[in-house]
Amino acid sequence: MHSSSPSHPSSTPLQSVLWNQDHLDLLDQRLLPEEIVYLPLKQAEEVWDAIRHLKVRGAPAIGIAAAFGVYLGIAEADTPDTKTMLRLIEEKAAYLATSRPTAVNLFWALDRMKERARVSADLVHSSAELKDIMLQEAISIQQEDEETCRLIGEHALSLFKEDMGLLTHCNAGGLATAKYGTALAPMYLAHEKGMNIKVFADETRPVLQGARLTAFELQQAGIDVTLICDNMAGMVMSKGWIDAVIVGTDRVAANGDVANKIGTYSVAVLAKEHGIPFYVACPLSTIDLDTPTGADIPIEERADEEITEGFGKRTAPKGIKVFNPAFDITPHDYVTAIITEKGIVEAPFEENLKKLFADMEQLEAK
Amino acid sequence: MHSSSPSHPSSTPLQSVLWNQDHLDLLDQRLLPEEIVYLPLKQAEEVWDAIRHLKVRGAPAIGIAAAFGVYLGIAEADTPDTKTMLRLIEEKAAYLATSRPTAVNLFWALDRMKERARVSADLVHSSAELKDIMLQEAISIQQEDEETCRLIGEHALSLFKEDMGLLTHCNAGGLATAKYGTALAPMYLAHEKGMNIKVFADETRPVLQGARLTAFELQQAGIDVTLICDNMAGMVMSKGWIDAVIVGTDRVAANGDVANKIGTYSVAVLAKEHGIPFYVACPLSTIDLDTPTGADIPIEERADEEITEGFGKRTAPKGIKVFNPAFDITPHDYVTAIITEKGIVEAPFEENLKKLFADMEQLEAK
Repeated sequence: MHSSSPSHPSSTPLQSVLWNQDHLDLLDQRLLPEEIVYLPLKQAEEVWDAIRHLKVRGAPAIGIAAAFGVYLGIAEADTPDTKTMLRLIEEKAAYLATSRPTAVNLFWALDRMKERARVSADLVHSSAELKDIMLQEAISIQQEDEETCRLIGEHALSLFKEDMGLLTHCNAGGLATAKYGTALAPMYLAHEKGMNIKVFADETRPVLQGARLTAFELQQAGIDVTLICDNMAGMVMSKGWIDAVIVGTDRVAANGDVANKIGTYSVAVLAKEHGIPFYVACPLSTIDLDTPTGADIPIEERADEEITEGFGKRTAPKGIKVFNPAFDITPHDYVTAIITEKGIVEAPFEENLKKLFADMEQLEAK
Repeated sequence: MHSSSPSHPSSTPLQSVLWNQDHLDLLDQRLLPEEIVYLPLKQAEEVWDAIRHLKVRGAPAIGIAAAFGVYLGIAEADTPDTKTMLRLIEEKAAYLATSRPTAVNLFWALDRMKERARVSADLVHSSAELKDIMLQEAISIQQEDEETCRLIGEHALSLFKEDMGLLTHCNAGGLATAKYGTALAPMYLAHEKGMNIKVFADETRPVLQGARLTAFELQQAGIDVTLICDNMAGMVMSKGWIDAVIVGTDRVAANGDVANKIGTYSVAVLAKEHGIPFYVACPLSTIDLDTPTGADIPIEERADEEITEGFGKRTAPKGIKVFNPAFDITPHDYVTAIITEKGIVEAPFEENLKKLFADMEQLEAK
């Protein structure tokens, strides 16, 4: 597939991972936004390579690709024996786990595939049946992620109104997940329902996820999106163009403090100053009750070159000192609400987040 | 001259325009920060070309270069008659005025050269004397600009303290003026006095004046400077690293509203939220009592490509909608003080700015 694929009607988000009968169509994110190229992957080795070389990014999308990679690794195997097939599944999963060393969702998805294979191996009558189960499990992982994102989107959408102006930072969109994303999910749902919304996307220096990915995927979906530099957010708010800010997050602490892409905190302060609600959209798996506050979240500092020569050309003097934190912490005082697949959580966050998890455990125990 | 010139001791700012006995050494700002190249200009035509092709930028620096250009245009002229010399001066000034159509300081400096020539033509005894007067006038324009910047720096320095952390946005430095700059002037003076200061320079998207010019000239002067992306200012403030923000301005309205490079308003909001003083440094000529408020200052919108492909590589999808204002307005409520060559003005700005100008007129009338 090449160029804006006909399999994506313009009203739904571009998907990064698509199962297509007998192979994976994977959007090569390295080429975005200049080219939309789907790579047809038929071998586990090709999936390994795609993950290793960042053709697929975003923790959920990586996990999904790896799960399908396990199936592709066994699809052609000529082994009637289910025990041999189980060993092969474990081998392929172990192999795919070496593609990127630190992606938590990758290990989680591969562990889930292995666990499902082990449980099923004794129950099935043929290795062909086990193969089918592996494919179904990969599809389930993808569908569950999509469902989680859709639920986040629906809860967030309840806060939207017609002709709303929205501002987002970084990319918490469909490209990083199975579909919809987190912060962008309500935008896709609003657009599906025919609501008018107007989105402003911060370009998000230094790596420009906003310009390269968010602006791109919203544009692809036919949503009204305007790209701005990060330092224009204040002016855009002062003009009265923004009714709500909505962002994703990498981790939420027990007290509601939010770690997200650098620049999120500045946006939150600006939102408060202009009386604009500041929403954080994320699955429950991102909320970590074991992290008491934002101060307990380590902030990764990245290479100087992201700032000094990020655009293919050096734009700062040699030897210049640089501070390049990848994330910042937005204290919970600036957060209007955290929007999850189980509903909307407001202040007091510490109390209400604890309650949300307790209610869920109770429900699961029933 | 090539590379970090020995004529600049590391404790003083790099100068963009240097008169060197019989020619102008002009720092080619197009090559910054990668190369420090001084172009030796000996002809008015070379100065015209340097202004036209942005080798020199910054309104005061352009005016100074043009004034020296007039002198270079007549320096070799073999005309004993002072009237013929006066006509030649007027011709060279008219020619240099065509180098850039909208630079106010360019016309101001050329008018001043012509006026001085007219007044002097009847008093001098030879055209050689008139030549000398032209050189002296160009040197005066440069010295007066330097003196204005130095006075701004001294007033601002009275607000500084040892081990202070400072944040600035865009470039209001020596490269745009004769020396020192406006917002950067107190930093150079502090450094000259052996004070420890730590400066954070916003890179200032989209054109990166902070990365390319501010970081560069402070680094050249041996001042402790750290480059950050614009969206990191909030985090840097929240860490307690910033004791004051100081920026330049393109125009101050009668009520103290400040127009400056896009992103300044966001920095001002962040400063207020963190209880950090927000200073604006500028010559009196930048304060326009005929402009009632910031709402009366037109904001230029610039080409999309500055954001989408600013550095030799496309970083946003084709056809994306872009909002690219070059400036924003910081309402006077966010301004702690305006620092001029005549002293520091605080709120109420409307009253105090009026008073400053009235006092000056009274003084001049005496």
